[in-house]
Amino acid sequence: MTVQTILFDFSVDSERTTDTKQRQEIAKVVRGEIENIFPQVELAYQMTMEDGFFCVFTENKETMITLRIFQQGLVTLNIEYYLEDGKEPLMTFDSSKRLENILAKKLKVHSGQVLPTLKRGDVARYFASSDERIIEYDIDALLFEERSPFQKIQILHSKTLGNMLILDELQNIAESDLIYTETLMGRGIENYEGKEICILGGGDGALLYELLKEKPKFVVMLEIDELVMQACNKYLNTICGDVLEKRKGDNYEIVVGDCVEYMKKFINENRKFDYVFGDLTDIPISGAPVGEIWDFIRTILEHSFKILKPDGKYLTHGNGTVCTESLELFEDQLRLLRPKVNFTTSKAFVPSFMEEWLFYQVSLA
Amino acid sequence: MTVQTILFDFSVDSERTTDTKQRQEIAKVVRGEIENIFPQVELAYQMTMEDGFFCVFTENKETMITLRIFQQGLVTLNIEYYLEDGKEPLMTFDSSKRLENILAKKLKVHSGQVLPTLKRGDVARYFASSDERIIEYDIDALLFEERSPFQKIQILHSKTLGNMLILDELQNIAESDLIYTETLMGRGIENYEGKEICILGGGDGALLYELLKEKPKFVVMLEIDELVMQACNKYLNTICGDVLEKRKGDNYEIVVGDCVEYMKKFINENRKFDYVFGDLTDIPISGAPVGEIWDFIRTILEHSFKILKPDGKYLTHGNGTVCTESLELFEDQLRLLRPKVNFTTSKAFVPSFMEEWLFYQVSLA
Repeated sequence: MTVQTILFDFSVDSERTTDTKQRQEIAKVVRGEIENIFPQVELAYQMTMEDGFFCVFTENKETMITLRIFQQGLVTLNIEYYLEDGKEPLMTFDSSKRLENILAKKLKVHSGQVLPTLKRGDVARYFASSDERIIEYDIDALLFEERSPFQKIQILHSKTLGNMLILDELQNIAESDLIYTETLMGRGIENYEGKEICILGGGDGALLYELLKEKPKFVVMLEIDELVMQACNKYLNTICGDVLEKRKGDNYEIVVGDCVEYMKKFINENRKFDYVFGDLTDIPISGAPVGEIWDFIRTILEHSFKILKPDGKYLTHGNGTVCTESLELFEDQLRLLRPKVNFTTSKAFVPSFMEEWLFYQVSLA
Repeated sequence: MTVQTILFDFSVDSERTTDTKQRQEIAKVVRGEIENIFPQVELAYQMTMEDGFFCVFTENKETMITLRIFQQGLVTLNIEYYLEDGKEPLMTFDSSKRLENILAKKLKVHSGQVLPTLKRGDVARYFASSDERIIEYDIDALLFEERSPFQKIQILHSKTLGNMLILDELQNIAESDLIYTETLMGRGIENYEGKEICILGGGDGALLYELLKEKPKFVVMLEIDELVMQACNKYLNTICGDVLEKRKGDNYEIVVGDCVEYMKKFINENRKFDYVFGDLTDIPISGAPVGEIWDFIRTILEHSFKILKPDGKYLTHGNGTVCTESLELFEDQLRLLRPKVNFTTSKAFVPSFMEEWLFYQVSLA
């Protein structure tokens, strides 16, 4: 069961949307075309706005249509109705394109568009790219949804990408994403044999699972959210194997706790690693490197270099390559670190992110 | 200038949405949380529906909020307001996620989501994948928009994909998409040297431009829409070179006209080709191979094999690999052809389609 939401927008001369009479004419044209699709349509409500005009049409009190005319020269039209499973939609993408075309001509618009029909209600299909563009996934099942003390955790099934881990509405990893883990760890570039490694976060288990194939001396993974690991152990086996099930082996251990606290402990014990992986929250998209998350990123970086051997490396994901500003802010933070560090980058198109992503390799200068 | 549209949806027990009192309670909770963000919010209108409840809230007659409670257990909340260029949005994706989280808890939902903010009005950013999922592109400029006698033609600029050709709201090709043309023509697999080739459609010029690099004897291209070629010649130079500018060379000619009519002419003249390319409308997504477009596809296939040499090949794009049903329908059509044909397929991830696409190579059995 879904609610179908179909959104149209048009831009017209603002002279026509500031004038009351011409606004009425626009509303009349829109209503006329809507009537061709919804013959029983009635005006339910109308209102003069601070910045234009708003009205509600309804057909049989089932299909709701809102029209808004903005004085700045924009017109938005929203059509919304309930669609039972298996029933044919009242409007297809093709018929909505036809309506858009007719209205564009009759309203003499500068530009017009109709969005592909939005389907709301049964499963979460809509997530954001790194620069907050909407992407609809071919999700056909919600396998898991719970809110832990730390975040909202969802496992969804995508027809083309397999099971996907979503944390607080952000795509983390999917069964399709081996390239993500391989680029993060620099497979074929870095040599992990006999090395001591610390993973900060990494609750999906994929990084740990892939690292163990490279015969490291020991990997310790510090993950705060027990529930994430339980969900991934159940639904992401193809990418994490049995590491989240076992939690401990000859050469690895998963510790459930706050990674900053454990890093402090390691610093006190003078325990050092060849590699530290930052597999935590993404770099935020913000105009300035301030706020809680940036403070957290700085803390992570500073602590990581305190537990790294002098020739050790800090490896982390950055953000979508389209987020140039946010990546620059992150690089500014790297340049501020003392002692000084060097960094290189690598990139990969991550299937479940539907975009190219940047990864960092940071070492002491 | 854009209109910001923020959409939330929640699923709850249907017992709670059929009962009038409980519906009022849901509306009260929603209003309470909206007031925390929009303190001046007022109820403008409310209506009992055939299938639930609908109401309109407004703040200062500028921000419009519609709430709908469906008896089937769905709740939709739409927030819409005008945002001037350079102004900060009233709600960010983060603050809308917070609202979603709070409402999900207070409404005790089964599942809930908020869609990344939709931006409507200045440029067309939203297009559909082959299976009609919405994809938002990082469009920053509308370079061209006109409606020819055949279709709506747009050239848009994407930050990551370059200039894009959009026909009737469907992505056709972008500067990022050499892989599309190379997979369609089977570069490195097919040998075009000294061959006679006919392109049906192909108005963006990319296929012709790439084929000419392979030293064919002669290529004739049959494109119906003069305006598409003018737009691509101006804005897609990096993919079509100068072929659309010149229209005719020693070994090629572009004919403006209906390809079916020209194929009939070729049949009458007994003119034969080594390769025919179907670079026309996509295979429609439909449950059955009926209707105008399927008739057109059958006509194209039948005529193409009449102008092909016995060892010639018909090469065409299919559809997104996710559209298995529509691809099967197309393959059924291929199997029905007489004399019998064989076909192979190849696939490529096409950057501007944001998905993997299937291509066909068809030859006489």
